[in-house]
Amino acid sequence: MKVGVVYYPEHWDRELWEKDADLMVETGVKVVRLAEFAWSRLEPVEGQYNFTWLDEAVEIFAGRGIEVILGTPTNCPPLWLYEKYPDAILCDEHGNRVTIGVRGHRCFNSPSLIKKTIQIVTEMAKHYKDNKAVVSWQIDNELEANHCTCPVCTDKFRNWLKKKYTTLEKLNDTYGNVMWSGEYSDWSQITPPLGNRQSWLNPAYLQDHYRYASESMVEFVKLQADIIRTYCKDVTITTNMYLGDMTPDFYKTFKELSYVSYDNYPVAVIPEDHEEIYSHAFHLDLTRGIKRQNFCIMEELSGAPGCWMPIRRTPRPNMIKGYSLQAFSRGADSVLHFRWRSATKGAEMFWHGILDHNNKLGRRYEEFRSLCDTVNEELQILEGTTIHNKVALLFSHEQDNAFKFQQQADGFHYYNQLKLFHDGVSRLGAGIDIINITANLDQYEVVIAPTVYIASKEIVDNLTEYVDKGGKLILTNRSGVKDETNACIMDYLPGPFASYVGAVVEEYDALGNNTNVIRMKNGKTYRCNQWADILQLDTAESLGAYREDFYQGKPAITKNTYGDGEVYYVGTILERDFYRDFMNDVIEGTNVEVFQGLADGVEVSVRENSVSRYLLIFNNTNHVQEVNLTDIERTILNPFDLKVVPFN
Amino acid sequence: MKVGVVYYPEHWDRELWEKDADLMVETGVKVVRLAEFAWSRLEPVEGQYNFTWLDEAVEIFAGRGIEVILGTPTNCPPLWLYEKYPDAILCDEHGNRVTIGVRGHRCFNSPSLIKKTIQIVTEMAKHYKDNKAVVSWQIDNELEANHCTCPVCTDKFRNWLKKKYTTLEKLNDTYGNVMWSGEYSDWSQITPPLGNRQSWLNPAYLQDHYRYASESMVEFVKLQADIIRTYCKDVTITTNMYLGDMTPDFYKTFKELSYVSYDNYPVAVIPEDHEEIYSHAFHLDLTRGIKRQNFCIMEELSGAPGCWMPIRRTPRPNMIKGYSLQAFSRGADSVLHFRWRSATKGAEMFWHGILDHNNKLGRRYEEFRSLCDTVNEELQILEGTTIHNKVALLFSHEQDNAFKFQQQADGFHYYNQLKLFHDGVSRLGAGIDIINITANLDQYEVVIAPTVYIASKEIVDNLTEYVDKGGKLILTNRSGVKDETNACIMDYLPGPFASYVGAVVEEYDALGNNTNVIRMKNGKTYRCNQWADILQLDTAESLGAYREDFYQGKPAITKNTYGDGEVYYVGTILERDFYRDFMNDVIEGTNVEVFQGLADGVEVSVRENSVSRYLLIFNNTNHVQEVNLTDIERTILNPFDLKVVPFN
Amino acid sequence: MKVGVVYYPEHWDRELWEKDADLMVETGVKVVRLAEFAWSRLEPVEGQYNFTWLDEAVEIFAGRGIEVILGTPTNCPPLWLYEKYPDAILCDEHGNRVTIGVRGHRCFNSPSLIKKTIQIVTEMAKHYKDNKAVVSWQIDNELEANHCTCPVCTDKFRNWLKKKYTTLEKLNDTYGNVMWSGEYSDWSQITPPLGNRQSWLNPAYLQDHYRYASESMVEFVKLQADIIRTYCKDVTITTNMYLGDMTPDFYKTFKELSYVSYDNYPVAVIPEDHEEIYSHAFHLDLTRGIKRQNFCIMEELSGAPGCWMPIRRTPRPNMIKGYSLQAFSRGADSVLHFRWRSATKGAEMFWHGILDHNNKLGRRYEEFRSLCDTVNEELQILEGTTIHNKVALLFSHEQDNAFKFQQQADGFHYYNQLKLFHDGVSRLGAGIDIINITANLDQYEVVIAPTVYIASKEIVDNLTEYVDKGGKLILTNRSGVKDETNACIMDYLPGPFASYVGAVVEEYDALGNNTNVIRMKNGKTYRCNQWADILQLDTAESLGAYREDFYQGKPAITKNTYGDGEVYYVGTILERDFYRDFMNDVIEGTNVEVFQGLADGVEVSVRENSVSRYLLIFNNTNHVQEVNLTDIERTILNPFDLKVVPFN
Repeated sequence: MKVGVVYYPEHWDRELWEKDADLMVETGVKVVRLAEFAWSRLEPVEGQYNFTWLDEAVEIFAGRGIEVILGTPTNCPPLWLYEKYPDAILCDEHGNRVTIGVRGHRCFNSPSLIKKTIQIVTEMAKHYKDNKAVVSWQIDNELEANHCTCPVCTDKFRNWLKKKYTTLEKLNDTYGNVMWSGEYSDWSQITPPLGNRQSWLNPAYLQDHYRYASESMVEFVKLQADIIRTYCKDVTITTNMYLGDMTPDFYKTFKELSYVSYDNYPVAVIPEDHEEIYSHAFHLDLTRGIKRQNFCIMEELSGAPGCWMPIRRTPRPNMIKGYSLQAFSRGADSVLHFRWRSATKGAEMFWHGILDHNNKLGRRYEEFRSLCDTVNEELQILEGTTIHNKVALLFSHEQDNAFKFQQQADGFHYYNQLKLFHDGVSRLGAGIDIINITANLDQYEVVIAPTVYIASKEIVDNLTEYVDKGGKLILTNRSGVKDETNACIMDYLPGPFASYVGAVVEEYDALGNNTNVIRMKNGKTYRCNQWADILQLDTAESLGAYREDFYQGKPAITKNTYGDGEVYYVGTILERDFYRDFMNDVIEGTNVEVFQGLADGVEVSVRENSVSRYLLIFNNTNHVQEVNLTDIERTILNPFDLKVVPFN
Repeated sequence: MKVGVVYYPEHWDRELWEKDADLMVETGVKVVRLAEFAWSRLEPVEGQYNFTWLDEAVEIFAGRGIEVILGTPTNCPPLWLYEKYPDAILCDEHGNRVTIGVRGHRCFNSPSLIKKTIQIVTEMAKHYKDNKAVVSWQIDNELEANHCTCPVCTDKFRNWLKKKYTTLEKLNDTYGNVMWSGEYSDWSQITPPLGNRQSWLNPAYLQDHYRYASESMVEFVKLQADIIRTYCKDVTITTNMYLGDMTPDFYKTFKELSYVSYDNYPVAVIPEDHEEIYSHAFHLDLTRGIKRQNFCIMEELSGAPGCWMPIRRTPRPNMIKGYSLQAFSRGADSVLHFRWRSATKGAEMFWHGILDHNNKLGRRYEEFRSLCDTVNEELQILEGTTIHNKVALLFSHEQDNAFKFQQQADGFHYYNQLKLFHDGVSRLGAGIDIINITANLDQYEVVIAPTVYIASKEIVDNLTEYVDKGGKLILTNRSGVKDETNACIMDYLPGPFASYVGAVVEEYDALGNNTNVIRMKNGKTYRCNQWADILQLDTAESLGAYREDFYQGKPAITKNTYGDGEVYYVGTILERDFYRDFMNDVIEGTNVEVFQGLADGVEVSVRENSVSRYLLIFNNTNHVQEVNLTDIERTILNPFDLKVVPFN
Repeated sequence: MKVGVVYYPEHWDRELWEKDADLMVETGVKVVRLAEFAWSRLEPVEGQYNFTWLDEAVEIFAGRGIEVILGTPTNCPPLWLYEKYPDAILCDEHGNRVTIGVRGHRCFNSPSLIKKTIQIVTEMAKHYKDNKAVVSWQIDNELEANHCTCPVCTDKFRNWLKKKYTTLEKLNDTYGNVMWSGEYSDWSQITPPLGNRQSWLNPAYLQDHYRYASESMVEFVKLQADIIRTYCKDVTITTNMYLGDMTPDFYKTFKELSYVSYDNYPVAVIPEDHEEIYSHAFHLDLTRGIKRQNFCIMEELSGAPGCWMPIRRTPRPNMIKGYSLQAFSRGADSVLHFRWRSATKGAEMFWHGILDHNNKLGRRYEEFRSLCDTVNEELQILEGTTIHNKVALLFSHEQDNAFKFQQQADGFHYYNQLKLFHDGVSRLGAGIDIINITANLDQYEVVIAPTVYIASKEIVDNLTEYVDKGGKLILTNRSGVKDETNACIMDYLPGPFASYVGAVVEEYDALGNNTNVIRMKNGKTYRCNQWADILQLDTAESLGAYREDFYQGKPAITKNTYGDGEVYYVGTILERDFYRDFMNDVIEGTNVEVFQGLADGVEVSVRENSVSRYLLIFNNTNHVQEVNLTDIERTILNPFDLKVVPFN
């Protein structure tokens, strides 16, 4: 349980370094991240490495008992590198080299970039291999599966396809390229996706390219990790993930890394619309689920963000501290705040740090100090504890990618339905894991698998095995639509799942932003929108039906008993309260641990080890909340406060 | 009176072909369209033609009595063609070859494309010339007057201008190029429109380029039609039109073709705002007016569209059938639904067909079968009947083009005012033709000519002749603004029409989205917006005047008696009801046949032959409607139902 | 006091020239501008100059007593020039030559363009040097500091930086290029800003590039001015400014020119929201303040604008006349209307002139004639009068530029806060100068300096000297943030101003479009938004504090007595009325002349000479207004009317 900061010695006058480190020690900081953008300082001239300044910085921290995480600087090669090796620059959707001058312009597959990466990482690893202060390494920064179109990438993608399909006949047939006479008659006709009309391109081809691009990025991570491991025997290795449009398959990314890191920037203004789900618990649970182990927040909100966009609202009191505590409650073992002090120069100067440009101790600093106190004192009992839940929500890169180029309806986004289920379970006071759709599900009593659109054999087998063993499975609209090539399955929806859903989709209506109403068996009604599956029952029973339009009275939500298991199908997307009520019914009768009676926005989680269990209660609202739980002492929580309660 | 479907044998396993054809026969399908995107299958290797598969498919349909329309595949040349002949790829507004990989990337003027077009069309025509099943040909697909900027097109455009203007002096003078020192001093300085600032370019030059681009496309159509005619003696030839930004002059396009085809995709959700005009009757009347004869719907809505955009709402019950019936009622003799079955592969997979991906018989199939029954049984009496109206609405490509680069006011669009008049006449229960502004007008008692902005000699002469013969003519705001070079006429508006309008425009105010109110002589008031002509009367009388702003009390709408004729001028754009009330007054006393008392959304038309007349009543609403017409038996129409009533 | 028009003889048939000139004389026109876009006519073939047509035109006006302002035609080189010297075309943000065909495509720094500019301007100057009718010259047209990226500009920018920083070390250090490894290791790596992500680029670098680009443009102006002065001894020289995104430093632009000209196109529809500030008095005061002397309106609204956008509303009655009178009241000595007659050809044909395309005398012409009468008769008494105010509002190009690439909050724009203060002072009936932030401030009793974000030594010294001398200074939020390199100052805000503000910014909250409320000491409350500085008082007293959010009760607005002076700080942006009430309090007790009791929208100014003073009262509303001022006779003003009242 450590609090840290991100620090850039290279941004500051040398005389500030010790002063900053002294203040960090006094504040309670235990770890710093250094150097992930410093290539131009580490290798100012090609082949001439300079670690002197970094040695000094590491020594300053080490000498004060602060651990160091070192970043490899490959996100930003120096300008001399791009000037000498222009093939290291990635190419855009028109095949042109991008304009450099910001960051992240490198092509992972460029031979020059790979050569220079090997050299710099090797030099760093050799240089720091015996430095005990360097406990961990971060590879690159906020990696994305960039869809480079350079000749090298083009060639690599062609070879990837050759290996997968062997012949053009098989490739053409799989993609259905005959449409619009798009059949390749030569491998040379294949390129990465080009032009501005991605949604017009073949979805099977795009799905493959996303897979290829993600694998390509993972190779780059592995290349660096292998070098570091070669020289540095006792360190851990990670990379800091963020969720952007080009997010790679993070399950594969982290497979060979030691632990998961996530850059956590929750909003500073809580939405006034209660229907909008704002808790960042979803992303924290997703992060924990990647390796199914505790994790690190490598960058945590420290002040108002601002850079390429106008400055945003400043975090409300207790938010900076609170969002860190929330992360610890969800499985973080360390949280580093970005950044120690706001930069006074460069494009990111208004991405505010713990300290303002004025270098004075202000409100946010005091809050951060209080966080350090809390963690260093009260939260050490959590050391070695982990989280174990009995409800799983399944995430799938295949689905996430597929929806990027074929949106199903206006307003339909993959993450939203996942968040709705997560919110529903959380409001019941139950814990929930978010894990890979292909992960082992044995430990779960309830599994939620929203929109299993691409029903690959691996995915279908995993879910089927779970149901066969008597699990409770929840499926939704847009499941079983595609096979693993991203072609439509020629069968009643939900395709391979129909056998245990006990119902099929007779017809569907893409509601988009229009609405319908669902009336449940118990008489409750909920608004729904985005999508309407009109169901035809086989062995399933209807739990809820449409009240409007030409399919009024037709089932929308079903339950089927299948062997020892139960399979639910939710054929539409409903308002927030439905998911709480529905999950309450599903969970009933299971061994899922539930803490009833939480106010909206109050969240619980349980961290435990072999001897103790701790209930963590977090107030994710801007109001004082009273918490009354059975067997737990009544407690009052200030906004964004965390309470740790040892129990049974 | 035939119903058909669009079918792609090349998209499906061979074993499905007979099954599909069998089901089509059972359903009542009489015609299929084939092959319009199949170049990569018809000529998989340059010069090696393969008609075997298509022969088989044609034979399967022919053997079951289903007629075939064959498409020429020139919309989508195969990839080998683009790879070998890159000049076949069209160039964008920056002079760069477009990114291929979707469709329609060919340049009509490319020598390579023309050569390969001649070859493939010749091969096809020779191959199928004696095949009796092939009754008709479709050239290319949804042709647009693409504004290619390649060197060949640049040269061709220069020569087009040289031929038209002979000297640069004349060209510079006509365009007024002296402004901003834009005078050409050499022909080499002329290019097609380049860059992103089209609305900043010279409007006379743009008008010429649209004319050139349209002619250029028509040449490409004629090239193919001539080849087909050379070999296939008894077939008809068409191309399937749709209305996009680059729509060519369809009067010229279809001049040398046998009949008009239109791709008809009405919205599946009826607008709730009654002011919004949603009936697709306008487009059907426009289609019928192109050759002033019956027509074909080559592609008709069969399910929810979705492709480059999210999936839209599914058609409400009876819509698929109803929109086809509406087309028949407006002059279609055949309607082909797009498509038989939703594609399971490729970018267009969510453009839903009659059958869903699951290949099961669902609601939409049943409706389609019912359509086939209705057409094959009840509608055969319409065989040989045509439509004859006494009211004409004039369409003009010159105006449509001119407004594309010089929008007159916020919210002002050429089609809107035409639709308002069409709606007004239709709500009276009268029939209306939409025809070319240069067409012979002898048969019409009332002619509506909205926004005759470019008043070329040909247009002015045609309208003047009509008025001189005693016709009733309605003109509107923005008429007589420009001469045929697209330069402003230096005279009081409406310029050459002022003599018979009997009034001039003293001043105008481009209202845009602001509003004013018109008070009519009879006391009725209507909101108006977009444009306000402030009129000064000569011999005309005022029918309505503005109630607001500094021109309060000034005439907006006038009527003038001119010889035996009457000329109306509507100087603003009003709310929907105005057009019904106004047209009612205009039609009074004429021989225009009117079916009074229709509910809003109920449409009538009359098809007749030398012996019989049929009143066709169509319920273009989502509600049951009761129809009470004089001399016609009271009838109840379900949503989107058509009733055929033989009368007098 | 002269009224004129912009006239293009080259656009019209030769036979119209005398007719137009005769009508101008009859109307009362005293001056015309000619030739600023006529390069293709003045040098139709390279090196062959043709002044015959222009001589004729000048003679036609001269012979009728109308003065001529000649424009140099360098905004639009002829096409033969671009064809022969492609380096004369400027390059866009991707380094590509822009598409020509509109206007303003030249690169100021191109050797070819400079050579041809010297030639054409020399030829013109030599030709007209003895022509007494040519009283003044306009250089180019609506000049902008175009950010060309051509090789010449790239090289020039590098040299500019070399000269400023001498070494790359100093440059890298100043910009903080180490961030994201952006350090230059060779001068060759420096380019002008490229790409679409300007807000991601280094702000210090961008600030320098704006400075360089502005200087570069000023050089081009000086080049031309020097040539004209060499040959034409008694003429005045100007250029016509407009305010666009690339507006150069107009204080430097006009430093070596004789007088300032401004192109004035106020909106023709007055906003219905009273909070929106629509008076164009702000821009007129800004124009007067550039050289702190009277000025010229070179282009004045004459009809509805329309060109690349749809046609806008036509000016309401008396607006054309009124906006000219408003300009005279604010220091204009001449106003030229753009344009005499609407063009009948070319892209600008719907930018309406005094006469419509029909060349008839309409409402706008009559209004213009009435303007001429008023100016030629009633306003001649203003000849030789000037404006002297005791309140100054400080404008700064440094701030304006800096905010372009680092917007501080949603909705925050530099001009808005200036306009709010200008509006507040104007509503009190006091006069206000808008002058350069580095100008001498001795004559002012009150100085308002909003958002002095970049606090360069020159700026700080100027303000400090003013305060030291006992002035009243008003500062606002976002002051003292940056040093002159555009790096953040590492001190409490407002940095170098804190000593006399007597308070510091403890923390800030970028409100954006969210709101808070300020309660003043006197109990009045005002809404505020965009920005909230939370103040910590030293010697200052609080005048107003926040009523909401976690900083409720904290001071937002302060007053500090400092020596003989007073310093106010307004830490947020408030609703309109605040500025009137606040400035009323500030002005109290000073010698600022105030005309109390004006209705909203009625504006006053004072023009005076050594013997007389004239109060000018302008009704900037669309309603009749009654004006009751102490010692001034009660008067009724029609919409947009001006009343001239001699007083004390």
